[in-house]
Amino acid sequence: MSLILAINAGSSSLKFQLLDMPAEKLVTKGSIERIGLSRSIFTIIVKGEKIQKINLIPNHETAVRLLLRRLVSYKIIQSLDMIKGIGHRVVHGGEFFSDSALVTDDVIRKIENLSDLAPLHNSANLIGIKVFCKVLPGVPEVVVFDTAFHQSMSEETYLYSLPYNYYQDFAMRKYGFHGTSHKYVAARAARLLKRPIETLKLISCHLGNGASITAIKGGKSVDTSMGFTPLAGITMGTRSGDIDPALIPYIMDKTDMNASEVVTILNKKSGMLGISGVSSDLRDIEKEAEQGNHRAKLAIRIFVERIQKYIGSYTVKMSGVDAIIFTGGIGEHSSMIRREVLHGLEFMGVFCEEKANQINGQELLISKTDSPIKALVIPTNEELMIACDTFRLAPMHLREKSG
Amino acid sequence: MSLILAINAGSSSLKFQLLDMPAEKLVTKGSIERIGLSRSIFTIIVKGEKIQKINLIPNHETAVRLLLRRLVSYKIIQSLDMIKGIGHRVVHGGEFFSDSALVTDDVIRKIENLSDLAPLHNSANLIGIKVFCKVLPGVPEVVVFDTAFHQSMSEETYLYSLPYNYYQDFAMRKYGFHGTSHKYVAARAARLLKRPIETLKLISCHLGNGASITAIKGGKSVDTSMGFTPLAGITMGTRSGDIDPALIPYIMDKTDMNASEVVTILNKKSGMLGISGVSSDLRDIEKEAEQGNHRAKLAIRIFVERIQKYIGSYTVKMSGVDAIIFTGGIGEHSSMIRREVLHGLEFMGVFCEEKANQINGQELLISKTDSPIKALVIPTNEELMIACDTFRLAPMHLREKSG
Repeated sequence: MSLILAINAGSSSLKFQLLDMPAEKLVTKGSIERIGLSRSIFTIIVKGEKIQKINLIPNHETAVRLLLRRLVSYKIIQSLDMIKGIGHRVVHGGEFFSDSALVTDDVIRKIENLSDLAPLHNSANLIGIKVFCKVLPGVPEVVVFDTAFHQSMSEETYLYSLPYNYYQDFAMRKYGFHGTSHKYVAARAARLLKRPIETLKLISCHLGNGASITAIKGGKSVDTSMGFTPLAGITMGTRSGDIDPALIPYIMDKTDMNASEVVTILNKKSGMLGISGVSSDLRDIEKEAEQGNHRAKLAIRIFVERIQKYIGSYTVKMSGVDAIIFTGGIGEHSSMIRREVLHGLEFMGVFCEEKANQINGQELLISKTDSPIKALVIPTNEELMIACDTFRLAPMHLREKSG
Repeated sequence: MSLILAINAGSSSLKFQLLDMPAEKLVTKGSIERIGLSRSIFTIIVKGEKIQKINLIPNHETAVRLLLRRLVSYKIIQSLDMIKGIGHRVVHGGEFFSDSALVTDDVIRKIENLSDLAPLHNSANLIGIKVFCKVLPGVPEVVVFDTAFHQSMSEETYLYSLPYNYYQDFAMRKYGFHGTSHKYVAARAARLLKRPIETLKLISCHLGNGASITAIKGGKSVDTSMGFTPLAGITMGTRSGDIDPALIPYIMDKTDMNASEVVTILNKKSGMLGISGVSSDLRDIEKEAEQGNHRAKLAIRIFVERIQKYIGSYTVKMSGVDAIIFTGGIGEHSSMIRREVLHGLEFMGVFCEEKANQINGQELLISKTDSPIKALVIPTNEELMIACDTFRLAPMHLREKSG
């Protein structure tokens, strides 16, 4: 068996999954949180059971060494030699990366160069890469970018209507995010629909605390709702999505904040939280809405309306659509949101099968059998995509050695 | 005959049309430009001929007195008594005005209160109102708002996903503009299609140097692409339209401008001008594009793509569309833009009749006879709308006196 570690490193956290490839079997998963803070928490699944320990974990290197030691001590693996590759999630690949890449010095340099575009994320992701390079030398590492899938967008789609030199000099353009998720669910949808992905027009709605919608034609992203940053697009848990840009100086003037502070409000205090005043979590908002809270109901209506309008845009963008996919925490688990979104699309020829729609969290067709446009729920699995890309891009001799 | 003056007053200009109502006949029109500057220019049509004079016009009061004197001296009217009403364009009616209104002290106070939302425009519009009140006392004045038609938008459409108190405390919401134009062309479309407006779903594309798209259901605006200000929405001559709001602090950082300066760039140096580097005028861009200029071609493709995506959104918003209307300088005169936009909508059932589409500047059906969704060109006439509303709202005894 050939084990691949899929890693998602943040500034004070590290999530991991260990997968057996090419069988795509999950061996274990867990996380290390509060790295560099007091009372760091190490969580891992051992034989189906969750084990949680409080440790002193001053930095990412300690975290990784602890993880590897425990994989052996909990007898999840016999030796570290069994790990044949490490795949890292990296947020921003800029225009350098339209696919995942095997880590080399050049790749690391490029990711560093992109830190300007995603200052918080890329540098944290890089720490993970460098630590594994040190701790498990010789094991190939692969980077998988949130932006890579969207590099297929055309120039007229990714360019903003700004002075052109802002693009040339400062790389200001639409990048899009959640690419690993959109790519994964599109591939699953093609299998489920038993049609070659090359023939399909798909709209995938990744609806979680962050949310984005992507138009996928022939397996390629042709448009996506997030932009230069993950702030743009539809209303999200705490993010405003699209607003009139002239609001920023107006908010500055009224609230005496500077522009960065305003954008922080747009990222962290807006969206469904800002409208409802209840929570950024749809489950809380739904409960309040059921009890008649006007602003909670409004937050849901706004969320649904923005999703529907993007679906309309992307249907025109592709001159039609074969299937609409729901994924992400909300997409997978809120039958209410799916029903409300699809309800407004009946005129297009999408008919929701409510009995199927009541089932949450599993791969399922939720449109009626004779619905011209299909609707699907597909739980996303970014870690599996990372493992697949790592297995695909790891040097051949490593793959050959594996069973 | 009952004459109505339709006035559009800017900070240094005043445009006018004199209309015979209810016959809707244009008697004369013209403009006074460079008010308060050197070499002010007075232009008026007399018996079909354009007369232009350079004058010293230090302020709006002088401008209005000159205009009224010349209307008599050029024998366009016999006496000022013949003017039965004055209609003023006012940009921002906020949430106070969902229709035009007869000017009273209370109305003036409300328009003053709204100056914060449209600092440059509303105060200039107010100067016009006050001068006529002084110079032609007793003649009823009516105000016609760019925003009023859009007041029918629902809460989930006009609210941004911002902290809710930004709406409550600072009136931050989508207002929309060009309302007078959208309302006018929708009414004309219903006549042309020989169907009651109450039964129609229309998308009107007002494409000029400023450009906006409106979804009109049953004669009411249900959504529009401009927002809190006229900066939002589609790409325009010099305006960016929608961008990721997080770009603003990024641009500030890269260019060392403050937020207001950045928004000025977004308003005046972006859009098709910014992309093409050629001009904000589509005719210049089209010429360059024909000669192979890549950025000119790109500007056109972006403009078309953004229009198409809004048409998709608004089709979903209304669960269908019966007709797409083109108006404004570009909408009325660029058969190329109309053709390109409609070309991407064939899958929906809009089929352009290219022979009709070649005709510019007149009211015309440009879709094929059997096209399920119709496409129309309708030259806008905001001054006529202003005159109609003035005639409608002027006190009854004045209307009765008229022939």
